[in-house]
Amino acid sequence: MTPILNGSNARPGPSGTRDVLPDEMRELRDMTRVMVDLLDDAGYGEVRTPTLEYERAMDGSELGPRAAYRLIDEHGDALVLRSDMTVPIVRVAVTRYEPNALPLRFSYLARAWRRVKPRSGEAREILQLGAELIGSEPADAAVELLELCGEALSSAGLADWQIGLGDGRILGELLASSGVSADDAEVLLEAVRDQDLVTVDSLAQRIAIPQAATIARTRINGVDLEEFDPVGLGINPASPAWSDLTAVVRALSPEFRARVVLDLGLAPKIDYYDGLVFEAYDPAIGRALGGGGSYDALLRAFGSSASGFGFALDTELVHAAVAGEERGEGS
Amino acid sequence: MTPILNGSNARPGPSGTRDVLPDEMRELRDMTRVMVDLLDDAGYGEVRTPTLEYERAMDGSELGPRAAYRLIDEHGDALVLRSDMTVPIVRVAVTRYEPNALPLRFSYLARAWRRVKPRSGEAREILQLGAELIGSEPADAAVELLELCGEALSSAGLADWQIGLGDGRILGELLASSGVSADDAEVLLEAVRDQDLVTVDSLAQRIAIPQAATIARTRINGVDLEEFDPVGLGINPASPAWSDLTAVVRALSPEFRARVVLDLGLAPKIDYYDGLVFEAYDPAIGRALGGGGSYDALLRAFGSSASGFGFALDTELVHAAVAGEERGEGS
Repeated sequence: MTPILNGSNARPGPSGTRDVLPDEMRELRDMTRVMVDLLDDAGYGEVRTPTLEYERAMDGSELGPRAAYRLIDEHGDALVLRSDMTVPIVRVAVTRYEPNALPLRFSYLARAWRRVKPRSGEAREILQLGAELIGSEPADAAVELLELCGEALSSAGLADWQIGLGDGRILGELLASSGVSADDAEVLLEAVRDQDLVTVDSLAQRIAIPQAATIARTRINGVDLEEFDPVGLGINPASPAWSDLTAVVRALSPEFRARVVLDLGLAPKIDYYDGLVFEAYDPAIGRALGGGGSYDALLRAFGSSASGFGFALDTELVHAAVAGEERGEGS
Repeated sequence: MTPILNGSNARPGPSGTRDVLPDEMRELRDMTRVMVDLLDDAGYGEVRTPTLEYERAMDGSELGPRAAYRLIDEHGDALVLRSDMTVPIVRVAVTRYEPNALPLRFSYLARAWRRVKPRSGEAREILQLGAELIGSEPADAAVELLELCGEALSSAGLADWQIGLGDGRILGELLASSGVSADDAEVLLEAVRDQDLVTVDSLAQRIAIPQAATIARTRINGVDLEEFDPVGLGINPASPAWSDLTAVVRALSPEFRARVVLDLGLAPKIDYYDGLVFEAYDPAIGRALGGGGSYDALLRAFGSSASGFGFALDTELVHAAVAGEERGEGS
């Protein structure tokens, strides 16, 4: 009897999802195991949280990415498929640990679900690898996690990764000190976040703050920081954003600093990032492999005054970048 | 400033879900890695499928466990959180492989979501480890997967696991050959599946088939099979169910056979199991750690005439059994 594997009764999965077959799965598994072990060895113990959370339990997290998938369970409770692991980990930290346990270091390899635009090629399900450091001195935490993120990328087999580093407050402080209206500032910051430079330019011209358009485009190699003059861009060198950013860059190892670009137009994609923010790139892939930043505001929303800093990498994008580098792309 | 980790704004997760903290997570991770590697080394390549599937794409699977969580995505499509991995793997087999690729061997370490009864202690999310063999000779497939399941349990660190082996058709054949009405047969088989022996006894008496109640209670050690007389229970030794079951037991290794109990009252918990069915137990845990069986009917629903056999283990229950054995429970 010949089997008829014609698939007549089967359809492919929803857009933004895919099947991973054994050969690719073996590579992905080997790669993520190395990365998980690296984080664990660095003291970032892996945690697992439910994929389904009460919608109301995420109330402290209106700062997090909006949940894409909401459902009602058999008891009539509204549940969401988590869109992010930082919020659940903050929930774990504040509910399962005593204050004297700080600082807390956690890692995860976990799925998150996001809303996708049709035909965007975006993934509905992301398998994220990440780390969170809660309750450490902010600049120390930033340096530790930036370097850990770099080590994770190297351990995955990536050679050419780079880090874009910014702080959403820099432009905000300039606009506030220039007396720009709150409405104009909001539109401008949103345009910067979306890298909509046409809107940035026209608005910067209308409100007569041309430096805003320059800042949105300014990228400084980490090794060139000492020669850079912020005053020419209207940035107060004594402002918290500028001094935090430069202190972190100066504390990074020379090898890491050589991979860092200060991107003054880099704005946080998630609302809980309230200070330093960064993204990881590789020339073989045309989008960020992941990123991170500081999220003290999220801890405050959960009733804690501790500082938080974390990052997350999209493991499938990292794997695609490794494959791209092997094919010589981007070099 | 003292951090206030008082959890005032945080609530625990939904019932049937939990957080796994680093110490336990490290044990679970080490255990599942060993098991995944065992399956991979045995030729069962790991696959990953989306957690969200179109509800309509699961149409061929009305035989599978009913999806507990249904949601509508941003395009208005009905999606479900998968309740099972066997159905998606059959979908992968029939849509991604040619007939000449048979037999196909797949494994997975994947979450499935089930509906839970309040206060039952059941898990909404199960992290299952499993294997599927599609397109092999049925008895060979059964022997291979039973022994692989045993090896997986041993590799996890379990010493005292046992296998209950049955075939839902045995009782069905007896009832059909005795001229019992379809309604009575259905009620009786459902009572056997639920191990509702009060209903089994009263119904067996009313329809005057006392052997049905005896069969529902009959357990034969694998090593004692040769001394057992099926005819006394009204079982036709030449029937497909009895000859399949005994052929598989005789083909098992002596070491494995010593752990097998033929449980003639074991009935399939999932509708796609249409022949041999088994469950894995450990004396340290009062419920099945997982199970499996043959599912040719599921392949037929997807348009294939190939045979299928698979198993799935609940990794958290296996881990709890290992911990229970270490504490000396059940021995």
